[in-house]
Amino acid sequence: MDDANPAAHAPAPDLSARLIVDRDALARNFQTLRKLAGGAETGASIKADAYGLGAAALAPRLAREGCRTFFTATPEEGAELRRVLGGGEADIWVLNGYHRPQRALYVENRLGVVLNQAHELAAFAQEPTGACALHLDTGMNRLGFSPRQTEELIGAPGVLDDLDLRIIMSHLACSEDPAHPMNAAQRARFMALAERLPTARLSLANTGGVMLGAEYHFDLVRPGIGLYGATASLTRPHPFEPVVRLEAPVLQVRALKAGDTIGYGASFTAEREMIAATAAAGYGDGLPRALSGKGFARIGGQRAPILGRVSMDLVVLDVTGCEAKARAGAPAVFLGADLTGTARDADTLPYELLTGLSQRPARLYEGAP
Amino acid sequence: MDDANPAAHAPAPDLSARLIVDRDALARNFQTLRKLAGGAETGASIKADAYGLGAAALAPRLAREGCRTFFTATPEEGAELRRVLGGGEADIWVLNGYHRPQRALYVENRLGVVLNQAHELAAFAQEPTGACALHLDTGMNRLGFSPRQTEELIGAPGVLDDLDLRIIMSHLACSEDPAHPMNAAQRARFMALAERLPTARLSLANTGGVMLGAEYHFDLVRPGIGLYGATASLTRPHPFEPVVRLEAPVLQVRALKAGDTIGYGASFTAEREMIAATAAAGYGDGLPRALSGKGFARIGGQRAPILGRVSMDLVVLDVTGCEAKARAGAPAVFLGADLTGTARDADTLPYELLTGLSQRPARLYEGAP
Repeated sequence: MDDANPAAHAPAPDLSARLIVDRDALARNFQTLRKLAGGAETGASIKADAYGLGAAALAPRLAREGCRTFFTATPEEGAELRRVLGGGEADIWVLNGYHRPQRALYVENRLGVVLNQAHELAAFAQEPTGACALHLDTGMNRLGFSPRQTEELIGAPGVLDDLDLRIIMSHLACSEDPAHPMNAAQRARFMALAERLPTARLSLANTGGVMLGAEYHFDLVRPGIGLYGATASLTRPHPFEPVVRLEAPVLQVRALKAGDTIGYGASFTAEREMIAATAAAGYGDGLPRALSGKGFARIGGQRAPILGRVSMDLVVLDVTGCEAKARAGAPAVFLGADLTGTARDADTLPYELLTGLSQRPARLYEGAP
Repeated sequence: MDDANPAAHAPAPDLSARLIVDRDALARNFQTLRKLAGGAETGASIKADAYGLGAAALAPRLAREGCRTFFTATPEEGAELRRVLGGGEADIWVLNGYHRPQRALYVENRLGVVLNQAHELAAFAQEPTGACALHLDTGMNRLGFSPRQTEELIGAPGVLDDLDLRIIMSHLACSEDPAHPMNAAQRARFMALAERLPTARLSLANTGGVMLGAEYHFDLVRPGIGLYGATASLTRPHPFEPVVRLEAPVLQVRALKAGDTIGYGASFTAEREMIAATAAAGYGDGLPRALSGKGFARIGGQRAPILGRVSMDLVVLDVTGCEAKARAGAPAVFLGADLTGTARDADTLPYELLTGLSQRPARLYEGAP
């Protein structure tokens, strides 16, 4: 045995990573957002399978916390959400627009339609499916009625007369930066357009918008990332609790001597004797390959830096100095309270870390359903 | 209407992305690898859900093509593979080692155990589950018997006497670079160790190893990425066909004027009038955020560069000059023949692009099952 750590020879409790999602933390984040939103209603963005964490396991808890308005990207997501909510009275909105051939999907699942452009409105108005919302583009240039389409609509509002128009909305491009001039500019454009359209509830704020303050809240806010424990800023403090951690068991511990290399491309060379632990998570689980040689796990609370390249199923960690904790079977923990720092290390945002988590790790949901 | 493209007003055929996997291309890649492997048996690495493409849909086709040896990372993956193969006689090997508490999983699913370290061998030998393999570390320093553990085993080989030892294997660290000295060094170490151990079939080559030539093939090769249409090299030509493409429908087309910005952070500013199309795929589908401002889709075969940041559900493309093809509903195609180039743009490898594809896009399998 050349392993420096005798504990390394104890059998591991498992060979596979698991993902632990804390529903109580999610619920507290929802209540935090609610307080921040003051008199505005707090909805929830639950698209992309609740930012990768599992809409089926999380949406019912949000509903029990008092959330009654949900936003999905596609009608398929909306239909699945209606199913996991057991029917119910919640409002579910489909952000990506109206697609007439899928009419039955909207009707059967009582999905609110967010109309993003004139031809969608025209198709919808011929045979409405139920409630609708208007999405005005105020600067994202991504989806939504363009300024000229909006002017045309204001000039000929009759098309809206017979519709159940519930919400007029827009979307902020730079809300993670309170000093960015886009925020006030988008808000001003939004208000100027909305007051020339029929009365409806107004909605502008994502999580960043909620944190910008009351003048951005209007009637309905629709946070996403705050619910899941982060914001779009990699530097500003925020009040949200960690919701998810990835636990990868240590499979093997080995002593390295100076000159030994690690992993694909032999990209890491040990400069001195060290102890390395191989843990059972890789980019096949959603641990970004961009963390190669940059990120870290925590083992027993201590930082264990990633050595060499993250591979598909495995990652090697420097456990020199925490050998006593880094025994085979010990969980190497990623994300958790380090979510934002990990996103910084991987040159991305917490959003992509979350949606990038794969279905391979077994999912364990803590807290009340 | 301010859209320059009249076709933009036709309704889209769908609002959601879909992933198309070509099983016939997979089969041809398997046969290509078989030819390259000459007299060696060609197995298949099908871990991480067949590199993200769906083991349930792909493994049966590989079996019909004559593949009889499969490699998974975890025993859970092995059990699922046995299920989708309908039982059968294929050999399924679990690369990540032996974990005694999961003994029943190995036995019931007839999973071959790859023993990576002395304590796994000791636990296995007390009560073998069936066939086993020895994994010798020849330079990855990730998993496998360390040089000293291997020497100890060679010095006291009695422990192997009663085992059904089928394979002695190792893994190449730098096989994508034929000139890398690690290749010959690992091969030499592997042969020197194997000849001092009991006779078993020898296996060293992943896809890169298959391409290194006959001296790396030994008895059994176990390619992965070549099956799925790529290699670990971002620059060398290879003989594999594209297996997967991501098709995202264009949702909206808009004219931009000079000074307009796009997306989060307003990170792209139009320098002149241009036409932009918003398509229904984002990092929530597995399109890396690292492609922001860098990658491209193809619409009707023409390149449409990504403008601004890739967001969770949407991406904005420059369709100036291909407006006639970029109508609402037209598929914007990612990956396909551009898999390797896209990996380069995203500063990763084709492997991570594939395993990063999410479950949101509907999956369509072309070709015989």
